[in-house]
Amino acid sequence: MSITVADIEAARRTIAGQVLRTPMLPAPKLSALTTAEIYVKYENLQVTNSFKDRGALNKLASLSASERERGVIAMSAGNHAQAIAYHAARLGIPATIVMPVTTPFVKVEATQAHGAEVVLEGETVAEAQLRAETIGRERGLTFVHPYDDPLVIAGQGTIALEMLEDAPDLDALVVPIGGGGLIAGTAIAARARKPAIEIVGAEAALYPSFWNALHGENRALGGATLAEGIAVKNVGVLALPIVRQLVSEIILVDEAHLERAVNAYLTLQKTMAEGAGAAGLAAMLVEPEKFRDRKIGLILCGGNIDARILASVMVRELERESRIVSFRLTIPDQPGVLGQIATRLGQLGANILGVEHRRLFLDVPAKGAKLDVTVETRDRAHGEHIFKVLTDDGFRPVWIDTATMME
Amino acid sequence: MSITVADIEAARRTIAGQVLRTPMLPAPKLSALTTAEIYVKYENLQVTNSFKDRGALNKLASLSASERERGVIAMSAGNHAQAIAYHAARLGIPATIVMPVTTPFVKVEATQAHGAEVVLEGETVAEAQLRAETIGRERGLTFVHPYDDPLVIAGQGTIALEMLEDAPDLDALVVPIGGGGLIAGTAIAARARKPAIEIVGAEAALYPSFWNALHGENRALGGATLAEGIAVKNVGVLALPIVRQLVSEIILVDEAHLERAVNAYLTLQKTMAEGAGAAGLAAMLVEPEKFRDRKIGLILCGGNIDARILASVMVRELERESRIVSFRLTIPDQPGVLGQIATRLGQLGANILGVEHRRLFLDVPAKGAKLDVTVETRDRAHGEHIFKVLTDDGFRPVWIDTATMME
Repeated sequence: MSITVADIEAARRTIAGQVLRTPMLPAPKLSALTTAEIYVKYENLQVTNSFKDRGALNKLASLSASERERGVIAMSAGNHAQAIAYHAARLGIPATIVMPVTTPFVKVEATQAHGAEVVLEGETVAEAQLRAETIGRERGLTFVHPYDDPLVIAGQGTIALEMLEDAPDLDALVVPIGGGGLIAGTAIAARARKPAIEIVGAEAALYPSFWNALHGENRALGGATLAEGIAVKNVGVLALPIVRQLVSEIILVDEAHLERAVNAYLTLQKTMAEGAGAAGLAAMLVEPEKFRDRKIGLILCGGNIDARILASVMVRELERESRIVSFRLTIPDQPGVLGQIATRLGQLGANILGVEHRRLFLDVPAKGAKLDVTVETRDRAHGEHIFKVLTDDGFRPVWIDTATMME
Repeated sequence: MSITVADIEAARRTIAGQVLRTPMLPAPKLSALTTAEIYVKYENLQVTNSFKDRGALNKLASLSASERERGVIAMSAGNHAQAIAYHAARLGIPATIVMPVTTPFVKVEATQAHGAEVVLEGETVAEAQLRAETIGRERGLTFVHPYDDPLVIAGQGTIALEMLEDAPDLDALVVPIGGGGLIAGTAIAARARKPAIEIVGAEAALYPSFWNALHGENRALGGATLAEGIAVKNVGVLALPIVRQLVSEIILVDEAHLERAVNAYLTLQKTMAEGAGAAGLAAMLVEPEKFRDRKIGLILCGGNIDARILASVMVRELERESRIVSFRLTIPDQPGVLGQIATRLGQLGANILGVEHRRLFLDVPAKGAKLDVTVETRDRAHGEHIFKVLTDDGFRPVWIDTATMME
């Protein structure tokens, strides 16, 4: 194998004191949710809020004096960009980051804030990648690949050394898999320390690139995913043989389970996971039987999720649990009716979140109106009780889809 | 003083292995925000997601065999309830928790889930408190006060012992202050270990009970606060003399700063703080000069914030940063205009979040309409550019308050 546990131990010495030795803690509420015994490794607490700090620093630290002077270049719109920018600045190495032109401004700004030069080029990741390679050649910069580099993989592997020190009796690690750098590094380290440990990959169902490679399939790759950090179309050339040899299974995680996992980390464990960071937990929710009563290590590998998307995930989950529900009522269009309904909802303990009058529907008599009401309830039974009382009051409620209303 | 560091050391031995020794980690992005050097103690990672586990367990462990058999009673709608319920169940002690009838169902359910009997009585906290004392006397249960108990205070003090072990060179602790149990315990422990350390209290401006007691003032107490965990009207009898002697200053934190602090923990540090849990950071944002370049320990003392409230805090912050803005446009009421505007917004890189037609305003000509558009922008300058282009296009945009629209 191209990378050994000795490389990972060397990486650990290289990065010691410069990246956080993150905590790993038991997560009893996530354990109750999954019927397994879960330990979470909080890589989202790194300075740039992802595990990418480790591989990036291990690579940067390996450069010669003249390479450092000329500088480095990377292509990334995400965590790798910030990790390279942050550690290059710390080490006094000029960094250029190429990002696709569609990259949200906050990500551009976060990378610039670390002192990197950001070049916005290419409509797609592939185009940006080509552009980065070209600029790198022209300017004599060292290209730092986000996953297909032995030093990057060795850096990521240090996570597993720490996990097995803190909890030597883990039965399995469930590791997000995008380009494969994280799972390759942690699999080498974990299996070297504890040959019996199982390594499971959690891959986005919309981007099953390792799944395809391992199963000889040709499933379609693409689409908008909450786990953009592991939405990778090309498997790592270095990672593939390592995954083939050391990973027992890949579980594909769909968007609904990714959303549930992000929400579970937030509401049960009080920590923020981006979609890719929650993929391991999502995999456990997809296949709970596989993990029942086993001691599982999860790598919460990143916490960089957009605030608006996170807010939307949370509201959708409340709706799924029927803690936010909407009714469309038919009401006589006369003064006082809204007051009557609002008073009734108050009596029922329903918290009104939104009210909208609609007078233009064709099925409403000229003197009538529709009223869309969104309320917060205690639970599903409470919502059903409110529905029944409004029916008895003659308002002919119809359930409507809250998510549509709030978007 | 009624409680000594020896009591706190004893508490530490009592609770060892039964509550988490939580991590304390540097928070460079919060440091950049406040111009101080911040270390965060993550008490929100305790099983019941607050520091209350410590004092509750220390008290429960002190009960005699017959007291344990009869059981305990507590009054709380919040973190104290869950901490008592959880640790009483672990120790096989029957627990009764009295909560005001207005307590949200999720909190009732969370407490019941730990096996406690929940009694919903009293319109207010004071009424529920009286009811709990009565039931306790009737049934011979031991009443566990949330803060006015030496064993509870000693339990909370263990946090400071751990903090100073992990970072002996802290210059100050900024500690949320409600009933005073947390700040009293941590002040005793911290000042015993390091007499020069400064202890600063962070109290909700709407509930300035310690402020009043220390300054001989009589400011009004009350109102809806994001920091309901420290919305306490009566100072702890035990805590008051300790605070008077060991705490250098109380900083009052208003709701806007509490919101900013909750949001900063979430978006910068990727962790979830309830309002009370973020009060220490809020105090640093209120008085940044006091803390500049000093090494500060913050106790993130609780993470139990309602998902809907957190989502709303996040959206309001985006609005404050002008990353979500709304315009009211005046448009001719004819087919194709909405398409024209939507296309234009797309060209400008504005992501449309909501559109509402309004035809009923009196200042709109019969053949015209108003259109309220809410868009996500890259930043303030981007929003202003969009505003200018829409003006040039003749749509006469007017800025409107997004928060009002989205509520």
